[in-house]
Amino acid sequence: MKNEKNVTATIGHFIDGRHVLDTARTQPVFDPATGLSHKSVALASKATVEQAIASAQAAFPAWRNTPPLKRARVMSRLKILLEENADQIAALITAEHGKVLSDAHGEVQRGIENVEYASYAPELLKGEHSRNVGPSIDTWSEFQALGVCAGITPFNFPAMVPLWMWPMAVACGNTFVLKPSERDPSSVLRIAELALQAGLPPGVLNVVNGDKEAVDTLLTDPRVKAVSFVGSTPIAASIYATGCAHGKRVQALGGAKNHAIVMSDADIDNAVSALMGAAFGSCGERCMAIPLVLAVGDVAADAVIAGLKAEMAQMRVGPGTNNANHMGPLVTQQHFEKVKGYVDQGVAEGATLVVDGRGLQVAGHEKGYFLGACLFDNVKPGMRIYQEEIFGPVLGVVRVKTLQEAMDLIDAHEYGNGTCIFTRDGEAARYFSDHIEVGMVGINVPLPVPVAYHSFGGWKRSLFGDLGAYGPDAMRFYTKRKTITQRWPSAGVREGAVFNFPSHR
Amino acid sequence: MKNEKNVTATIGHFIDGRHVLDTARTQPVFDPATGLSHKSVALASKATVEQAIASAQAAFPAWRNTPPLKRARVMSRLKILLEENADQIAALITAEHGKVLSDAHGEVQRGIENVEYASYAPELLKGEHSRNVGPSIDTWSEFQALGVCAGITPFNFPAMVPLWMWPMAVACGNTFVLKPSERDPSSVLRIAELALQAGLPPGVLNVVNGDKEAVDTLLTDPRVKAVSFVGSTPIAASIYATGCAHGKRVQALGGAKNHAIVMSDADIDNAVSALMGAAFGSCGERCMAIPLVLAVGDVAADAVIAGLKAEMAQMRVGPGTNNANHMGPLVTQQHFEKVKGYVDQGVAEGATLVVDGRGLQVAGHEKGYFLGACLFDNVKPGMRIYQEEIFGPVLGVVRVKTLQEAMDLIDAHEYGNGTCIFTRDGEAARYFSDHIEVGMVGINVPLPVPVAYHSFGGWKRSLFGDLGAYGPDAMRFYTKRKTITQRWPSAGVREGAVFNFPSHR
Amino acid sequence: MKNEKNVTATIGHFIDGRHVLDTARTQPVFDPATGLSHKSVALASKATVEQAIASAQAAFPAWRNTPPLKRARVMSRLKILLEENADQIAALITAEHGKVLSDAHGEVQRGIENVEYASYAPELLKGEHSRNVGPSIDTWSEFQALGVCAGITPFNFPAMVPLWMWPMAVACGNTFVLKPSERDPSSVLRIAELALQAGLPPGVLNVVNGDKEAVDTLLTDPRVKAVSFVGSTPIAASIYATGCAHGKRVQALGGAKNHAIVMSDADIDNAVSALMGAAFGSCGERCMAIPLVLAVGDVAADAVIAGLKAEMAQMRVGPGTNNANHMGPLVTQQHFEKVKGYVDQGVAEGATLVVDGRGLQVAGHEKGYFLGACLFDNVKPGMRIYQEEIFGPVLGVVRVKTLQEAMDLIDAHEYGNGTCIFTRDGEAARYFSDHIEVGMVGINVPLPVPVAYHSFGGWKRSLFGDLGAYGPDAMRFYTKRKTITQRWPSAGVREGAVFNFPSHR
Amino acid sequence: MKNEKNVTATIGHFIDGRHVLDTARTQPVFDPATGLSHKSVALASKATVEQAIASAQAAFPAWRNTPPLKRARVMSRLKILLEENADQIAALITAEHGKVLSDAHGEVQRGIENVEYASYAPELLKGEHSRNVGPSIDTWSEFQALGVCAGITPFNFPAMVPLWMWPMAVACGNTFVLKPSERDPSSVLRIAELALQAGLPPGVLNVVNGDKEAVDTLLTDPRVKAVSFVGSTPIAASIYATGCAHGKRVQALGGAKNHAIVMSDADIDNAVSALMGAAFGSCGERCMAIPLVLAVGDVAADAVIAGLKAEMAQMRVGPGTNNANHMGPLVTQQHFEKVKGYVDQGVAEGATLVVDGRGLQVAGHEKGYFLGACLFDNVKPGMRIYQEEIFGPVLGVVRVKTLQEAMDLIDAHEYGNGTCIFTRDGEAARYFSDHIEVGMVGINVPLPVPVAYHSFGGWKRSLFGDLGAYGPDAMRFYTKRKTITQRWPSAGVREGAVFNFPSHR
Repeated sequence: MKNEKNVTATIGHFIDGRHVLDTARTQPVFDPATGLSHKSVALASKATVEQAIASAQAAFPAWRNTPPLKRARVMSRLKILLEENADQIAALITAEHGKVLSDAHGEVQRGIENVEYASYAPELLKGEHSRNVGPSIDTWSEFQALGVCAGITPFNFPAMVPLWMWPMAVACGNTFVLKPSERDPSSVLRIAELALQAGLPPGVLNVVNGDKEAVDTLLTDPRVKAVSFVGSTPIAASIYATGCAHGKRVQALGGAKNHAIVMSDADIDNAVSALMGAAFGSCGERCMAIPLVLAVGDVAADAVIAGLKAEMAQMRVGPGTNNANHMGPLVTQQHFEKVKGYVDQGVAEGATLVVDGRGLQVAGHEKGYFLGACLFDNVKPGMRIYQEEIFGPVLGVVRVKTLQEAMDLIDAHEYGNGTCIFTRDGEAARYFSDHIEVGMVGINVPLPVPVAYHSFGGWKRSLFGDLGAYGPDAMRFYTKRKTITQRWPSAGVREGAVFNFPSHR
Repeated sequence: MKNEKNVTATIGHFIDGRHVLDTARTQPVFDPATGLSHKSVALASKATVEQAIASAQAAFPAWRNTPPLKRARVMSRLKILLEENADQIAALITAEHGKVLSDAHGEVQRGIENVEYASYAPELLKGEHSRNVGPSIDTWSEFQALGVCAGITPFNFPAMVPLWMWPMAVACGNTFVLKPSERDPSSVLRIAELALQAGLPPGVLNVVNGDKEAVDTLLTDPRVKAVSFVGSTPIAASIYATGCAHGKRVQALGGAKNHAIVMSDADIDNAVSALMGAAFGSCGERCMAIPLVLAVGDVAADAVIAGLKAEMAQMRVGPGTNNANHMGPLVTQQHFEKVKGYVDQGVAEGATLVVDGRGLQVAGHEKGYFLGACLFDNVKPGMRIYQEEIFGPVLGVVRVKTLQEAMDLIDAHEYGNGTCIFTRDGEAARYFSDHIEVGMVGINVPLPVPVAYHSFGGWKRSLFGDLGAYGPDAMRFYTKRKTITQRWPSAGVREGAVFNFPSHR
Repeated sequence: MKNEKNVTATIGHFIDGRHVLDTARTQPVFDPATGLSHKSVALASKATVEQAIASAQAAFPAWRNTPPLKRARVMSRLKILLEENADQIAALITAEHGKVLSDAHGEVQRGIENVEYASYAPELLKGEHSRNVGPSIDTWSEFQALGVCAGITPFNFPAMVPLWMWPMAVACGNTFVLKPSERDPSSVLRIAELALQAGLPPGVLNVVNGDKEAVDTLLTDPRVKAVSFVGSTPIAASIYATGCAHGKRVQALGGAKNHAIVMSDADIDNAVSALMGAAFGSCGERCMAIPLVLAVGDVAADAVIAGLKAEMAQMRVGPGTNNANHMGPLVTQQHFEKVKGYVDQGVAEGATLVVDGRGLQVAGHEKGYFLGACLFDNVKPGMRIYQEEIFGPVLGVVRVKTLQEAMDLIDAHEYGNGTCIFTRDGEAARYFSDHIEVGMVGINVPLPVPVAYHSFGGWKRSLFGDLGAYGPDAMRFYTKRKTITQRWPSAGVREGAVFNFPSHR
Repeated sequence: MKNEKNVTATIGHFIDGRHVLDTARTQPVFDPATGLSHKSVALASKATVEQAIASAQAAFPAWRNTPPLKRARVMSRLKILLEENADQIAALITAEHGKVLSDAHGEVQRGIENVEYASYAPELLKGEHSRNVGPSIDTWSEFQALGVCAGITPFNFPAMVPLWMWPMAVACGNTFVLKPSERDPSSVLRIAELALQAGLPPGVLNVVNGDKEAVDTLLTDPRVKAVSFVGSTPIAASIYATGCAHGKRVQALGGAKNHAIVMSDADIDNAVSALMGAAFGSCGERCMAIPLVLAVGDVAADAVIAGLKAEMAQMRVGPGTNNANHMGPLVTQQHFEKVKGYVDQGVAEGATLVVDGRGLQVAGHEKGYFLGACLFDNVKPGMRIYQEEIFGPVLGVVRVKTLQEAMDLIDAHEYGNGTCIFTRDGEAARYFSDHIEVGMVGINVPLPVPVAYHSFGGWKRSLFGDLGAYGPDAMRFYTKRKTITQRWPSAGVREGAVFNFPSHR
């Protein structure tokens, strides 16, 4: 490690508008396509995190008093800068996360949409005004900033998930400390620089890289008023419990195991094509990926499997820097082993491995973390590949007899992030979307990630908290309601009693 | 105790539309005006609470599917029944809580307003619909019910605070288990009967009386999805931590120490009159009471104190059943001792006791928990009577030199529930309401409790959670957002390709 | 006629909370089931209408200052009174309009829902508040009442259409002059009495019966700020032009010719059953009736016609006082002749008269205006029975080949009030509802009258104006926006400069 | 004139993305600072206007189907282009209108804010969705585009007022024909070019220059669905009547005579400074200018007049191209004569002319239309300078005794566009803003023009129509509500009855 440090650049933090290095502890950052590391990331100490919090705290009063329109315009300018720098940001994502460049571009684009929504702040922050709640008494509400907010984000969307959080938080008048994933920290730092360039005052957005020490500091420091988290469910549950125990408001988004239902009347070609992207895009390392298909009836099941097999045979896997590839490597060696282990496990549990991607070798990238796409038939509830979030390119088909059976399976599952149905039938779609215990529902839409002007949020153990990420819910999460009730006493000035008052001029 | 049981009625629970008695453990309920107990209340076992939860769980599917308009109409009918039965409900409150009847009527009236707001459910539950989020893709949101919700409520507003919670919860399609205060449980049970009479199906609202065992069951049972709490801050903090650690959404409203600022330009007569009610109404046992006055300048301070002394000399204290009294007894002997102890402490700490209510005797009610109203001058930050919530008829005046000094004191205090300012000056009022770190602000309004169509919520350690009680926040708290994204595949039916389709008829 | 007058009661006006008779001109009111008249209605002179306007003008200032919650509660009480008096009101409708009692009850119920929505006024009237539109500058909007508003309503829903208008208008703080149809004026007068009983102050709602003289007075009097009209399109266009030329805001709802599309995949039994009610309910005298079916493909057409024939054979026509009847008489002898003439015309133009209701005789009611239900096949665009609003029990089937052809026909028609499609196919429904040039669209719902918490409004020549009737649009129509921008000059009071100010006390 | 034409450029129209010249009729465009004309403007024939309407009509279907987010992004790009080209646009304004460059820049900036608001379209266009309006029946609303909309705008804000209209109209999915003032048409044409550059498809925005012929064509052509107008009240009334008589929705903003009240407790220095800008900025050629001061009490009146005299003595009047000038010329020779005539009239009617600007000569610009600022004392209601809109740099002071007298004067005036009060007193401000019959109210804000995210609209004869310009009202004006009610018949697909359906694949 020591040697490596000598030749690598070290990625630090971004505090109070400046890059800050704190190299007591570092950790290598790898290129998943090669398995090599040429840079490392600093892991912030408690003191460094507290410095970031202090910076945010100091920046708060002036930023909070900045009119919403001015705050919004910083977001408008950032939007343009992100568009102008999208290539560079996408390249940073691919280099550290591994996903294909076009996919990284897509991620940046979705992130930009959140910045765009934050630029609507003057509209979003409108309070409610009631004249005459009683005789000559008025009441109105204002949505005021909380103070210092924190975000803790995962490796799989290193640029986008932070953009779900801090733009809305700062547009609402808060200041922010972001702790991104230490696996792929570079894109977010670049974006922080662009935010400064767009006019965000120093200290309004701070970035600290780190591990548990940083997280624990953010969760317990009394100056931090709110925490947004995206990651796995066990960590989300813990973050929620710890943050709440320290009196903060917390929204903690966890894992998923999204099921797609294919009905017998579906347009199967369309469904297969949609499932390919939903299952294998970004190697399945998405909380909105579709790792399970519930095919209703064997006719549908056979057709779906036949279609998938045919399309999977055409897949190209290789370094993400080549846009001709459909899929890049998994994020780390460790994760590669874990996903591969799930495939082994699925075979052991009796599911039918229709397409086996385990043997894949990418020429010239033998040390990269590449796993070919895998397809299971006859997956059953209770199998670990059914119950657990694999976060890899492994798609399983479960055969069911009716829509109700499919819905009962989905409702029985621990997670409730996203789901979708493929059908032509209005009633099937409406019955499904009304009753299913899942927060984001697609009807012939495989990845029902809401657009930026709606909100993202799963149900059951996929989200802890009351309010979703981004969109209208984010405005509410990042503000506290203040309600003012006003009555004026009968006035001398109006009635002429103090007519000669202005003697002090 | 045994003897007493023989002569007292025992107040039980209300589960699945029926009164249920569970007398393994009971506790006497006292009349604070006499110090006597003629009834006792059952303390629910874990099993009884679970029975209530099961009832609510069973009632949920049908109630959730009932159109919002029909749910709202139950609220409309309940509103009428509450108006018709207001005298009886107020009498039950006074008999167990002690407050003056007219004050109990006021409480019922405020509760009715919450029922009224819940009757707007069809309007409040509207989701957002976006056509063409992409070509021929639509997205909309629905605010769906959570399932079983729970409420835990305090003694000081035995009818009103429950009505902050369950009407909105059930109007949103949830079912409910309420654990009211065991000090004064009768009014809420009567209201539960009326709700049934208004058409609320059995099991939609359940009431369990109890203590920590009941609370712990509600906080940990996985079938309970949300918890609303009103009480003291230490308990609120604990409820929030425990409920969140069990994956629930929680809103926990705690204590308060509300300051009123009196500016030198205020209408002093008006301010004094307002402070009398705000400080001593319901014996100060209100989380929106005003126990502290910050008088800006000695001129204002002297005038306020002179005014208060004069009005306090006219106060009548006695049993709440007599509407001619301004103030009734405190709620329990134990609480009487505690409040009296605070007055002793204030004297010991050096505040000037201008009016001493400690020696009060109410003829014919010598065992009642009556304490006369007390007024302190020269209260200082740091004194226990400044820092802590007394919840009794004790008003303290703090002398400050400027509005800014007054605001700094308020912001430095642990609580941030309500506050108010008395002034004629638009700029002073606006500067105050904009910057003060308190959730509910009055401008020449002593008790800025928002009307039912706005929301109730303090800041700092007065509320744990993201969303306030009742009003629009309650709609959001008692629902989870579901977002549907819909695209239809190009259709045979529309294009005529499957023209002969309906052969299956 | 002279003799008849001697024995009849005369229906007058309701002004300033009192019944007012103005018998210079009267007109008989008939019972359509018998063709007899036992009462007449006064036709208001210009002076009488001006008296009503003056009453409304005088009542305005106090009513406008009444808090919205208090205004809303009048609506809540009225709702209850309407429910309690529904039988009587329905009987009045049936006696003068002819519709079957159960249908009259349905009308009253829909009207009550509008009163219910008006009772949400405190929520609906909330304005928008923006803190810091600039440094220390706030802006908010209030939706303030207009003053005197007028409504002019048709015979076909004598109770409901007025309830679309004045409850929202007065809940918003306006006062009102209503001119109902002189054919069936009694139900609305009874409702006006109930409104007074519910607590509406005298003068807030006034009713004048009359004809063109009354209408012209309302349209030109400068004290009238807004006019709502429902009637035929030529009159609506004229009302809109005249009212606007006199500087008023006007919403004028006109005629309709609503088409139902039946797709080949529809549930035909369901569609037929829905069409029976939509075509023949209330004799087709509804602006949301379905007088035209566009059957896509001959298979669908033949099935629909077979189904309709079978159901029409079971129809019972007779006096509306007998709930066993499906259909009562037409409203007047003149209208009977007109509708019958359309049937003759359809035969002459070459449409196939499948079911002929012209010969119907109702035993014991030979002078009643009864016409049996008629069904045409092979109706074609261009025929008068296709182009014009018949407002009678005449249903025509047009055979088309594709959904697009059906939609082109609908879009080419003068009217655009309502339409519906019967299909199981999500894409057909979505394509239809997105693109069709009609304001109210049903998907498997034959009469897509929006519920009271949405708004009613056709497109094209079915509505003149920007805003629809009832629901959220009505709130906007009956209020004008006031926008306040506020900044306070740096204050002596806050800064201590005028510390000794309150010397004037 | 003929000679002049030879040397001048002719300003044409902008239709379907191209400049179009139609020189049958032209009119010279003058530089008000020099009185010279070097260019002329084409006056569109009916045929040319119809060509523009046809272009807009043709562009509508595709633009209406473009997702709102994409339409909004054109606005975002336009915003940037306007910022980049602001100098050029401001110079065009100054050259043709005469206002000082910094003021022209201010106008451009306010216009940009409207473009910014239009870029929030995805949020603004959200409809309302109600699940279960009945069992398994859903209702939602969509705000759909109208089609071709038209705008007719005045000379005084040649860039800004058009930007109040067409950006919101096109963001809502409409296409547009704009007829700007023929006095200063260049800036709007430049902006149209920039819109094209920003990605607005050809035909979505068309500009035609012209006179009554163009206006009449727009008001009567059935393809035009909505008309927005800003100008004088007589024309506005006529536009409203004519447009409405042709079945269109119309909003017509007319004249103003805005009063400022100065209370005795006001910060007089602040008020005087505010009044200078509000009265004389842009030569008073603003519908939100303040031409009248109501001073409450002689103390206030004397102080205000003394302050104004002092400041007016420092005013610099000269060509708008020099930012050191406070005021430029009036717009035309004709308007100069008219304004000067009002000053003569005021003297004749007995008002006291405290400052007389009539003799002003600007060296080197002797033919420019320069008039010095004028101040009247003792203006009285009934004088023409009190009653009529002068639209020039003439400020009158009316002396009143009480706030109520001041408010009665304002309410008695024909216009109700804007007004303001200068006071420190909360109650005076609230009483004023609540009761005054004026649509836009300032509290210590002289020009209460609402920010772009609120709406602009006067009352009384200052606005004809229901809905104001820009902001939320504009979204509603430029869309029509469509309400869909949907129920799906019990489905074979869901219940498995048509399990073998997909045989057509």
